[in-house]
Amino acid sequence: MPERFATDRLRDARQISGWAESADVIVVGLGSAGACAALEAHRAGARVLILEKQSQGGGTSALAAGQFYLGGGTALQGACGFEDSLEAMTTYMSMACGPGAPEDKIDLFVKNSIEHYDWLVEQGIPFRATFVPTTEATNPPGPDGLTYTGSEPAHPWCEFATPAPRGHNVENEGDSGIVLMKVLIEAVEREGIEILTNVETTRLAMDEGGRIAGVGVREGSAEGAHESSREKWFAASRGVILCTGGFGFNEEMLARYAPPLLGCAAVGSEAEDGLGIRLGMAAGGDAIRMDAGCVMIPFSKPRSLVRGIIVNGRGERFINEDVYQAVHGDIALKRQAGVSYLIHDADSYSKPLLPFPDAAEADSPEELEEKLGLPPGSLVTTLERWNEGAERGEDPLFHKGTEWITPLEKPPFRAIDLRREAFPYPFFTLGGLRTDLDGRVLTPENEIIEGLFAAGRTSSGIPAQGYNSGMSLSDCTFFGRRAGRAAGTHRPTR
Amino acid sequence: MPERFATDRLRDARQISGWAESADVIVVGLGSAGACAALEAHRAGARVLILEKQSQGGGTSALAAGQFYLGGGTALQGACGFEDSLEAMTTYMSMACGPGAPEDKIDLFVKNSIEHYDWLVEQGIPFRATFVPTTEATNPPGPDGLTYTGSEPAHPWCEFATPAPRGHNVENEGDSGIVLMKVLIEAVEREGIEILTNVETTRLAMDEGGRIAGVGVREGSAEGAHESSREKWFAASRGVILCTGGFGFNEEMLARYAPPLLGCAAVGSEAEDGLGIRLGMAAGGDAIRMDAGCVMIPFSKPRSLVRGIIVNGRGERFINEDVYQAVHGDIALKRQAGVSYLIHDADSYSKPLLPFPDAAEADSPEELEEKLGLPPGSLVTTLERWNEGAERGEDPLFHKGTEWITPLEKPPFRAIDLRREAFPYPFFTLGGLRTDLDGRVLTPENEIIEGLFAAGRTSSGIPAQGYNSGMSLSDCTFFGRRAGRAAGTHRPTR
Repeated sequence: MPERFATDRLRDARQISGWAESADVIVVGLGSAGACAALEAHRAGARVLILEKQSQGGGTSALAAGQFYLGGGTALQGACGFEDSLEAMTTYMSMACGPGAPEDKIDLFVKNSIEHYDWLVEQGIPFRATFVPTTEATNPPGPDGLTYTGSEPAHPWCEFATPAPRGHNVENEGDSGIVLMKVLIEAVEREGIEILTNVETTRLAMDEGGRIAGVGVREGSAEGAHESSREKWFAASRGVILCTGGFGFNEEMLARYAPPLLGCAAVGSEAEDGLGIRLGMAAGGDAIRMDAGCVMIPFSKPRSLVRGIIVNGRGERFINEDVYQAVHGDIALKRQAGVSYLIHDADSYSKPLLPFPDAAEADSPEELEEKLGLPPGSLVTTLERWNEGAERGEDPLFHKGTEWITPLEKPPFRAIDLRREAFPYPFFTLGGLRTDLDGRVLTPENEIIEGLFAAGRTSSGIPAQGYNSGMSLSDCTFFGRRAGRAAGTHRPTR
Repeated sequence: MPERFATDRLRDARQISGWAESADVIVVGLGSAGACAALEAHRAGARVLILEKQSQGGGTSALAAGQFYLGGGTALQGACGFEDSLEAMTTYMSMACGPGAPEDKIDLFVKNSIEHYDWLVEQGIPFRATFVPTTEATNPPGPDGLTYTGSEPAHPWCEFATPAPRGHNVENEGDSGIVLMKVLIEAVEREGIEILTNVETTRLAMDEGGRIAGVGVREGSAEGAHESSREKWFAASRGVILCTGGFGFNEEMLARYAPPLLGCAAVGSEAEDGLGIRLGMAAGGDAIRMDAGCVMIPFSKPRSLVRGIIVNGRGERFINEDVYQAVHGDIALKRQAGVSYLIHDADSYSKPLLPFPDAAEADSPEELEEKLGLPPGSLVTTLERWNEGAERGEDPLFHKGTEWITPLEKPPFRAIDLRREAFPYPFFTLGGLRTDLDGRVLTPENEIIEGLFAAGRTSSGIPAQGYNSGMSLSDCTFFGRRAGRAAGTHRPTR
């Protein structure tokens, strides 16, 4: 008789003496991906059981700003007077989510984006039909429904894809992820789907045909399962869907897969310890893009701070300052060694809303350069070139939007410190299990692991290697739904 | 009875009706890692069987320049009159192999570097006790034994670690990997270790205790195994060592794990299709740093070309031009979008030995800048600042070594095209299975997969995320030896 697989995270189902519970579909993790997966599996006729490690559902989604990336002509875009095209949206997302953007997932998502918005509204998620222009955007975004959330109007994206506002913001004063999850969990409860909280999933069970047959669990508290509590086994006749989020709070996994993210500040739920990814790998699943992260430098609050210029440790600009904060963050962290400063003059400066400290203040560019320890002449040259273009309303180097171009000439000059050590960059992980369009976990040989699904940040999804606000929630909910439907209708072949 | 695991790459050993061959240790792949593993396993008293997919052994190692990264005071360093310290070598390697350099592997390797050199000599590998200074280095390196192979004398490394030449070059006219592999394979044959060529390994067999018990094979030609040939099973009582190299020639794996490397030019043996990595993953092994690659821009032949300055698509310098070619390559590809030019004047220019085309020639910096389509004033400013420092013999921006600093003032000015599309960058992959210090393959939970070992580029080794010439061969041979010893002395516990 077999005793074990190579890893203790996977158990031979024949070794299990009895199943304490059973369901058609077991969903592990009740964030937005898990909730949507559960709803669709249930509606497909499956008996669904949700296992949540913490004392209540919500996960990172409940802590999110609460925006969805949607477009191509949604009802909300129409109500706010905007046109959008599937083609422009596809082009933009292909640029924003790479290198190596998942074209198949993007195509499918874009084609169904209008429907997905309608579905979210049907679940009871509120969106207000009001648009906030970029120049007036606040953070938290407030109750308004539509906004730009990425780099759509910025160079170079605007040269390739007609910009449209695609941030669909759940209505609330302040961050609205909490509203989103309240609505989704209420829908889950209304439909009578069973939720077990304080239950940690410990392993997967694989049957003699290589199919995932269920999960091992321990009852525990939100602070972690009691090691001493007895392990029980729950059977899943149609499938297990892993929706436990990413691994931003697991330092060992960060050191192993994504060292540059160590030293940044993980955001979201501390429950994001990579468990789902490791469970999937234990079953033979392929994890990809494990180095990828959404790294943010949220300096532009108020947005007027975009009028300054960002320079690296050599006093050179390296980006148009009006790009989305995670585009800037990724480049600053990985290409500029986490060293950059935001340079302002007296007219453009205002105090950042977030605690970015001032690095230096000076009466002249020369003095500022010296105080920052930049190479002699570097910042002076950069400012001269900037001002030369700004007089003409141009940024020939990076093509910042004209509304943000202003000469920086009036003392005092200030450098706001954007270095990682001055303000640890918030981040979350983007890498995860490789899945097909229905959330089925794939092996490195492209085999389907029967009965095993993943969604949300447990999988590598639409924001494979690049992220804009709203793309993760859209990926979680859209592909969560698909995984739920696929699992709910699955009939084991063996 | 069990039918299968989730993946067809892994087979339940109890399903195997009979073993066609058996050995204590099976080594898959006869490059330098495999040869060293086989030798040490054999010397530890194990009966060893080597399986080679191609018609003869050698692999990528036989195609390599044939240098080892060694130091801390080797006999060769001493014979050439150089001192070195373990501390300086550790510091340098920790900087060069990151971010996230494997400190434990580096420490162990450095401590044993002197012994490892002696061992290589004992096997019959020839090293000539002559030193070639960087300024006179040629490529192929010729028969001389000692040279600098990395960025040791360059900024910023030289500020942290006293430079020493650590490139230990196998004696030969031209590339010497062929000599290295001839010697190693002769040693293998002399000791009577069995080698089967034209045999493709298809899967691993796992027994009821989760131990790797052997491999499935098909006989085939160098062009690939005959699908129709019957699969046979070879038992390994002590262990299987995977030494099949990386995945540079597997475009699907590149697209999945390391998209920026697509469009570069894989070097080495076409047999490097990632098979060993995929076999290890099928058994539950963790693959890490799969995005990492050694990407080279070998422009500096002749070395005098280093006197030019490299600028990006914005006409700015971004690196001291005297760094090792893979440091430059990684930064140019990933941080400068694969766009850079090497700028020369009439005095510094000579025709590159490799076919890098000229991008433009002009009578003035202004004209050159315009012909290259760089932002107005950008290259002009960069050259002004360069010449200003060069007059004083300084490079305040990047601290290029003074021997390469010369004003660039005399027309005609030339730009050599270093863009990826002008000269696809040679590369090989660095990511692979995560192993302990004895080559044991680990799961994502840090469990040992009993009986499974990996070495060389099938594993993530010393050059985890950064590479200097000689580091891969040193890692292959040193950790190949350790894996061989560990497998050869292994006694199954179950």
